[in-house]
Amino acid sequence: MARLVESSYGKCAVRLTKVVRRAQEHTLIELDVRIILSGAFDAVYTDADNSACIPTDTMKNAVYALARQHSFDSPEAFAGILADHFTGFPQVSRVEVLVEAEPWARIATDGGPHPHAFTRGGPGVRTCRIVAERGRASRTWAGVNGLEVVKTARSAFAGFHKDRYTTLPETHDRIFATSVEAAWEYAAAPRSFSAAFDSARSCILVCFAGHDSASVQHTIWAMGEALLARVPEISEVSIRMPNRHRLLVNLQPFGLDNPNEIFVATTEPYGLISGTIRRE
Amino acid sequence: MARLVESSYGKCAVRLTKVVRRAQEHTLIELDVRIILSGAFDAVYTDADNSACIPTDTMKNAVYALARQHSFDSPEAFAGILADHFTGFPQVSRVEVLVEAEPWARIATDGGPHPHAFTRGGPGVRTCRIVAERGRASRTWAGVNGLEVVKTARSAFAGFHKDRYTTLPETHDRIFATSVEAAWEYAAAPRSFSAAFDSARSCILVCFAGHDSASVQHTIWAMGEALLARVPEISEVSIRMPNRHRLLVNLQPFGLDNPNEIFVATTEPYGLISGTIRRE
Amino acid sequence: MARLVESSYGKCAVRLTKVVRRAQEHTLIELDVRIILSGAFDAVYTDADNSACIPTDTMKNAVYALARQHSFDSPEAFAGILADHFTGFPQVSRVEVLVEAEPWARIATDGGPHPHAFTRGGPGVRTCRIVAERGRASRTWAGVNGLEVVKTARSAFAGFHKDRYTTLPETHDRIFATSVEAAWEYAAAPRSFSAAFDSARSCILVCFAGHDSASVQHTIWAMGEALLARVPEISEVSIRMPNRHRLLVNLQPFGLDNPNEIFVATTEPYGLISGTIRRE
Amino acid sequence: MARLVESSYGKCAVRLTKVVRRAQEHTLIELDVRIILSGAFDAVYTDADNSACIPTDTMKNAVYALARQHSFDSPEAFAGILADHFTGFPQVSRVEVLVEAEPWARIATDGGPHPHAFTRGGPGVRTCRIVAERGRASRTWAGVNGLEVVKTARSAFAGFHKDRYTTLPETHDRIFATSVEAAWEYAAAPRSFSAAFDSARSCILVCFAGHDSASVQHTIWAMGEALLARVPEISEVSIRMPNRHRLLVNLQPFGLDNPNEIFVATTEPYGLISGTIRRE
Repeated sequence: MARLVESSYGKCAVRLTKVVRRAQEHTLIELDVRIILSGAFDAVYTDADNSACIPTDTMKNAVYALARQHSFDSPEAFAGILADHFTGFPQVSRVEVLVEAEPWARIATDGGPHPHAFTRGGPGVRTCRIVAERGRASRTWAGVNGLEVVKTARSAFAGFHKDRYTTLPETHDRIFATSVEAAWEYAAAPRSFSAAFDSARSCILVCFAGHDSASVQHTIWAMGEALLARVPEISEVSIRMPNRHRLLVNLQPFGLDNPNEIFVATTEPYGLISGTIRRE
Repeated sequence: MARLVESSYGKCAVRLTKVVRRAQEHTLIELDVRIILSGAFDAVYTDADNSACIPTDTMKNAVYALARQHSFDSPEAFAGILADHFTGFPQVSRVEVLVEAEPWARIATDGGPHPHAFTRGGPGVRTCRIVAERGRASRTWAGVNGLEVVKTARSAFAGFHKDRYTTLPETHDRIFATSVEAAWEYAAAPRSFSAAFDSARSCILVCFAGHDSASVQHTIWAMGEALLARVPEISEVSIRMPNRHRLLVNLQPFGLDNPNEIFVATTEPYGLISGTIRRE
Repeated sequence: MARLVESSYGKCAVRLTKVVRRAQEHTLIELDVRIILSGAFDAVYTDADNSACIPTDTMKNAVYALARQHSFDSPEAFAGILADHFTGFPQVSRVEVLVEAEPWARIATDGGPHPHAFTRGGPGVRTCRIVAERGRASRTWAGVNGLEVVKTARSAFAGFHKDRYTTLPETHDRIFATSVEAAWEYAAAPRSFSAAFDSARSCILVCFAGHDSASVQHTIWAMGEALLARVPEISEVSIRMPNRHRLLVNLQPFGLDNPNEIFVATTEPYGLISGTIRRE
Repeated sequence: MARLVESSYGKCAVRLTKVVRRAQEHTLIELDVRIILSGAFDAVYTDADNSACIPTDTMKNAVYALARQHSFDSPEAFAGILADHFTGFPQVSRVEVLVEAEPWARIATDGGPHPHAFTRGGPGVRTCRIVAERGRASRTWAGVNGLEVVKTARSAFAGFHKDRYTTLPETHDRIFATSVEAAWEYAAAPRSFSAAFDSARSCILVCFAGHDSASVQHTIWAMGEALLARVPEISEVSIRMPNRHRLLVNLQPFGLDNPNEIFVATTEPYGLISGTIRRE
């Protein structure tokens, strides 16, 4: 009467700190790892038969043990090591590894970047995701979350559909504030995942700054085109941006004008715009 | 060279309060609404042509105006009103409406439930989701999020796969703590969406309490079977449960035993288990 | 040239789970404990001399070890055990213990409250705080946080001060929504701390529901008076309540009236009102 | 029988955006403002007499109107304008203004910092606080919150007090991670509040990086001394730092050593260390 049609399980929020101690300087890697498995696990659900079940505690242990046994220079490289490990289990048909990297940056001192002290860099958190399925080439995405940006010029929203519930005035000069969430797939591995990430993030920021935006949608398209042009290994990018509205404050009750100067930042409600752009 | 292969947009966190004032008592409805549209919007992205674009501000206005014009007795009913409204636009091919309902409950007084004062009830937040696609029957899900539960007996985890990274001891008596996230699809509308929701939530709680659990997976399956048996209109249910681990504290360094009595609750890392069960 | 004029340190977010297993039923206690010490610790700061410093890790261990060694039937009792332990160190002149209790409630089943399965109860989180200073009687507070309430009648705000920046209309029928944070001091220990807490929380809820409110301030005063009248051991209570505004939506642009029916719930900005009421 | 012994009220989370549009570039100011008043407001509580009550809605309006009417080049300057405004009411005896500034930084482009596009800078959020009491000189604090830092060398914790609950091993080489919360009082206004803030934040970062830390307490003292030495207008500084523990992972079960390389970052429990250092 009932059938299990989909299932997965795994470990989340495995927080790994790795310190590479060289004579000149230390490298600090802090990753938040999530591993999700699918496969021949139906009997765990339906028959209380745990014999195939790899405990999520074991997954956590593997993260720390593999981090000790391997050198890696990017979140993507470590995610690949984890994906390889878990695809080695015969009962596993699909492994998804998601990694977020803490954006630590060396503290600036008079003597230059500090060799072993760090503060939060960014902006935005670097992410990556690998999906390895039995019998298929594994796929790799990289991305950035929480890349907060705002511009005070060259953003418009006009010429839109009107109906009985429309009260929004057209504007040719609004504030555009958002937090970019972007993830792009690599058709081929770039020479350096970290250099590719830096290029991509910088490309998003510069595109946001320079674009003559007719809408959030319009800027998403511009960012997608720019990313595909900038990083040749990217085959597709998905971008999601909330519209963090800044509303012009009505100062007339106080006998004051407001020449596009005083705004209230609002959190609720917010627009949410998404788009996926693929290289043809 | 670039193509828009997927897109959607909408308004999130539209917070509606509706008070129905009857002589005997007030009814308080507080909903958090999200509306996401897809359709013939490519030119908004690629050509800066906003003529088809229904502003998200208009969506927000529609929520408040439609709430005034219609009576409704469930989140599902209001989500349906919104879905109908937005499928009326020719440029819209798909509407997704998600609603979360604040779980207000009447304050208990000596004179019984209060007619116009409320406190947070629950447990858990009621959700619903309607997807209306042009040319197809619309689909309706209901669910519950954040349904926090814990049991101190009849939960085991043993007989699992062991490998070189396994350190977890088998246990036949552990604490099982989680926060249930469940969403079920209705093949047909139940007589009362609210009565069906109450039945389903209660069924989840009672199943959790009474089940002889061999794993989180095993309990998900039991919950799925129980829900299908209890509410005949449900065709399928997806359940996701984090494992909010309670770890036995080692008190030996202090010369103390710990007969399954003292635990530490941990947030990170956590297991995450999912399953979808369908009526056959 | 510089002097340390104030200092304290301690351990926060020590999450204790204790299960008391009786034949008929289990009792589940989950506490979040914070311990803050002050005393003769200046040399730790100024001279890198840690000899007086009790590590915060040791504080955490003490929480678990003392929970094993002692029976207690309230957060206040356990906080007292901890305060006694730490005032035993000669270098400690002041101990502050804060405890939050997870509001677990037995799951309701056809056979009555379940003996070993729980779900989130509440509303609101129970808190307590003990301050023990050398040479003084220790002081005990109890309270509730996050007690969310809303009423749809008998709340007004009118007759207030007007100036050039006033735009708020007077209202005799508004929605009043808040989240009560209250803490009361016991001049003497009540017979049962848990019974006193239940009385106090219920008193707050019933007072909120029944009061003819002229302002948030007015309701704080009413709550304070009611608490002092209800629980004789309370000598003083501090209450803090944000004003979680529900704003009437202007539906005129859509040709609709709004007879105090449709509101938008807002998070920002919010009023914040505080008051301390003492028994004379 | 009951007496109101303390009270205050105000408006929180007033989110102000001000854009100063110059030909060459725009300046973007985003502040989160909190205003708390005390004074002759007892009758509002005890007598339902609102005649002295300045609505919090009016406070919000004043923030926007005063931001339009005044130029200011620092959060401190704007907080002072607000404090002056509210001390002008005869019923107000004390005004507290707290401001948090969003750390926007110009987006870096090939052509230099962008004239009107910004991304999140930092690290840390700049704060300020002014307390103006009738009949006293007003006091001004500045500070930084959420200044996240970590160092992988030159941090020890040894020689501490041991008792029966001590299990922490002594260490001479641990990771030290924290999020600095600091607030300093200015005895006199610095020539530029923003330059003073930049100096202070940089001073905290450099001190953290270079200090040979024997404990979190020891580093707080070092930071306090450094701040007093660096910014002559500061009379006193309070610093609070959680200890965001990184725990060495035991890899022995997997046949691996761990030469201070692999750690787990934990959130709970955490140490919390505070100190106030005054210029003598």
